[in-house]
Amino acid sequence: MELLDSPRAMRERAAALERAGRRVGLVPTMGFLHEGHLSLMRLLRPACDELWVSVFVNPAQFGPGEDLARYPRDLERDLALCRGEGVDGVLAPAVAAVYPPGFATWVEPGPVAVRYCGATRPGHFRGVLTIVLRLFMWTRCRAAAFGAKDAQQLWLIRRMARDLGLPVEIVEGATVREADPRAMSSRNAYLDAGRRQAALVLRRSLARGAELLAAGCAPEQALAAARAVLAEEAAVAPEYVHVADWAELDSLAGWPERPDWRAAGRGAEARPGEELVLLAAVRAGSTRLIDNLRVRAGSPPGTDRP
Amino acid sequence: MELLDSPRAMRERAAALERAGRRVGLVPTMGFLHEGHLSLMRLLRPACDELWVSVFVNPAQFGPGEDLARYPRDLERDLALCRGEGVDGVLAPAVAAVYPPGFATWVEPGPVAVRYCGATRPGHFRGVLTIVLRLFMWTRCRAAAFGAKDAQQLWLIRRMARDLGLPVEIVEGATVREADPRAMSSRNAYLDAGRRQAALVLRRSLARGAELLAAGCAPEQALAAARAVLAEEAAVAPEYVHVADWAELDSLAGWPERPDWRAAGRGAEARPGEELVLLAAVRAGSTRLIDNLRVRAGSPPGTDRP
Repeated sequence: MELLDSPRAMRERAAALERAGRRVGLVPTMGFLHEGHLSLMRLLRPACDELWVSVFVNPAQFGPGEDLARYPRDLERDLALCRGEGVDGVLAPAVAAVYPPGFATWVEPGPVAVRYCGATRPGHFRGVLTIVLRLFMWTRCRAAAFGAKDAQQLWLIRRMARDLGLPVEIVEGATVREADPRAMSSRNAYLDAGRRQAALVLRRSLARGAELLAAGCAPEQALAAARAVLAEEAAVAPEYVHVADWAELDSLAGWPERPDWRAAGRGAEARPGEELVLLAAVRAGSTRLIDNLRVRAGSPPGTDRP
Repeated sequence: MELLDSPRAMRERAAALERAGRRVGLVPTMGFLHEGHLSLMRLLRPACDELWVSVFVNPAQFGPGEDLARYPRDLERDLALCRGEGVDGVLAPAVAAVYPPGFATWVEPGPVAVRYCGATRPGHFRGVLTIVLRLFMWTRCRAAAFGAKDAQQLWLIRRMARDLGLPVEIVEGATVREADPRAMSSRNAYLDAGRRQAALVLRRSLARGAELLAAGCAPEQALAAARAVLAEEAAVAPEYVHVADWAELDSLAGWPERPDWRAAGRGAEARPGEELVLLAAVRAGSTRLIDNLRVRAGSPPGTDRP
């Protein structure tokens, strides 16, 4: 397995792979790999000739006061896990090589980037899209995999790929969960046993809301039920809970209420059969956790048509 | 010669060309081709297997009140000229296909984009960089040619390619001039004979300034001389005249005076041997014209060292 430590080395390698007609697949990560990342590698393997993984804790997607400094890192362990998955190469560049003096060109996402996680993390998705685009360029990958757990990130990367016409297939991997069934996250490492237990309420709350949406209940009703479950756990403070359509990530119902997170002309009702997403962020102590569930809106109760 | 009318068709063609191992070169244009564009085609030909030209008058780089509607267009003539140059394919997409509903992802250039032309054309270079990146992605080109006449555009595209790690070689073509020696521009078509004559003062003014810079005069002195020449022609109204370093496009001297168009720590003096650019924009009636000259700063008068 190759290990490259700079964008320049990666670009040279990618040019050689292109000349050899090898199709590169990329799993971009911030390292501290868990089963979620490994599942993306397995998913992408059949779609490419060369499977590459990037490990880079990207400062540009952390705000001041966020957990950049303490974000967990363990490159040796990451490399061993990649080797175990038969990865062909790992790019783990230094920050100085990624952001040289004079770096000034950014990918600016549209209005969806200021909703949900973007509301409390200004500039976060700008940082994410810019590094993802650059990783695509450096590796010349033709497929890349992202986890559904970061729903808004996945959505914005898909929109970027569509808008900019990137020659990269965006592959979605399902959220991988512990038996709990807490979503796997490198940030789970921050939690002590008590908080880990308390954090389970996040998934429980989303499951309750999704159940109602699937049964055809209105977004407002599902939201209220999800919030009620969250309120049962005093050790967890909700940051937001929203029901959105997956097509445009317009908020159909949410707390805090944000009707402005919906495009003009889009009503607050779900359409029968429409794909919805319930997304939430909570804090357990100083740790911020996110999760989401996707669900098809059931037929509204009382309808006679299938 | 192929003619494609949508990004989608171009992307499919580019994927096929990539599979066939063909290296694509691209000359992006707004059409109404002149000798300047043709020279870029000839320049790029040896650097690629497939030579493509795009013809697209990009609304996103025109401000309100600018000349988008009246910008000259003649696709049939452009196609004939491309055929004459042995171009392999032309992409001439419709505006609706380039900016579909929901388009929201932009390339945001750094602070250099608000200087010079950017000062009176806010958003112009954002529009330019975004369409250029998308053309690169659609065509999967590995080389692309741009004219030196649009110096700031060339500089910002180079910086974008570097910052984002685009796998595209940016090739610079020298400004092509009439015998006058006015710079060729599609916008020259707007000028009547009198204004065409008056507009010659732009190049004369830059030539005078460049002469002094080459002789080792200070940027302030060269600027004053260039402005004095411009002032001789009452039918032409200067918008800006600046002396900048070509490395960072920092303004060393300029009118209007903008010391804030220089990075902190950069002095206003030219370094001996440093590559400089004299750039200016003027209005002749309602027509805006730009031009520039690049020059190496001479040794300062009186120095004893080579």
